[in-house]
Amino acid sequence: MSDKLRKHIEEITPITDKEFDYLLSHFSVKKLKKHQFLIQQGDLVKNDHFVVSGLLKAYHTNPDDGKEHILQFAWENWWITDFQAYFNQTNSTLNIDCIEDVEVLSISLENREKICADLHKIEHFFRKKSNFGYIALQQRILSLLTHSTKERYEQMLSNYPSLFQRVPKSLIASYLGVSRETLSRLSK
Amino acid sequence: MSDKLRKHIEEITPITDKEFDYLLSHFSVKKLKKHQFLIQQGDLVKNDHFVVSGLLKAYHTNPDDGKEHILQFAWENWWITDFQAYFNQTNSTLNIDCIEDVEVLSISLENREKICADLHKIEHFFRKKSNFGYIALQQRILSLLTHSTKERYEQMLSNYPSLFQRVPKSLIASYLGVSRETLSRLSK
Repeated sequence: MSDKLRKHIEEITPITDKEFDYLLSHFSVKKLKKHQFLIQQGDLVKNDHFVVSGLLKAYHTNPDDGKEHILQFAWENWWITDFQAYFNQTNSTLNIDCIEDVEVLSISLENREKICADLHKIEHFFRKKSNFGYIALQQRILSLLTHSTKERYEQMLSNYPSLFQRVPKSLIASYLGVSRETLSRLSK
Repeated sequence: MSDKLRKHIEEITPITDKEFDYLLSHFSVKKLKKHQFLIQQGDLVKNDHFVVSGLLKAYHTNPDDGKEHILQFAWENWWITDFQAYFNQTNSTLNIDCIEDVEVLSISLENREKICADLHKIEHFFRKKSNFGYIALQQRILSLLTHSTKERYEQMLSNYPSLFQRVPKSLIASYLGVSRETLSRLSK
């Protein structure tokens, strides 16, 4: 399973066997079953997680009506955590649970900062990943501000076709911020 | 004006005089008047810009009705560009213009990558900045998904009180994605 992490890093920077062994020693393996929680709201967020296999969702639960708003899906080669809580080492405001059985490689903030400080190329890797993430979020904000629900649905289908095979429609609706009924109309 | 950039970098990492002179040699100074464009939709986006003084907005113009959707404001100590176009060296899908007279320090992607490769601490600086930016955008998405317009207005007023002194109400409305009339009701 560590091959996937290595391949993922080497999409941005080549690393030696020795460097990879060193990096890997800072991660721990975690396996979860479908429906289990990786992070529950209120937990201290110690780790960021690289998804080796499976699918998860990060969401905010409205305290008034219990409604779920999905911030992010993550599957193979994605990273997921409550980033605000992780970087500030505070308690999670999000829930992250498993839509499928999941294997992740987890790294603490302390270890992440350590490997970045020890290896310039890893600092480079994480800077690049963060830049890509920043761009993706800006595009999502623009999409939320400027596109109709129909356009956002079609954009999502075109960007992530495989997600629609793996995720129930109700969760797609929750990600787009629309009702299940609206989504059914759009997908006809 | 370069003092501001140095202070900004040293909030994250200390640098020597020699290092700062080296860094600064990769930036160029640009001065613009109120209403001028820093970037126009369709321009090749060569530079990222550190704001030394003044205030700008980045926005998308709807081709159908000409309506402006503001993605970002930037003022002293913020960075602004069309990040997607900058990192991909493509044409801008955004307009960025000046709400006040502006002074920026501009850096090309090539120079940004060069100073990151040459100085590990600068790669660290930009990774940290990108992480902070990522968190802020996730919070904005959550806010768009879960908060009412009233809540988002109050959050913005609480986070950036000085912005309300510097920016006309119509632009606040455009950032929040509501009509000027709705905003007037909220701000009473």
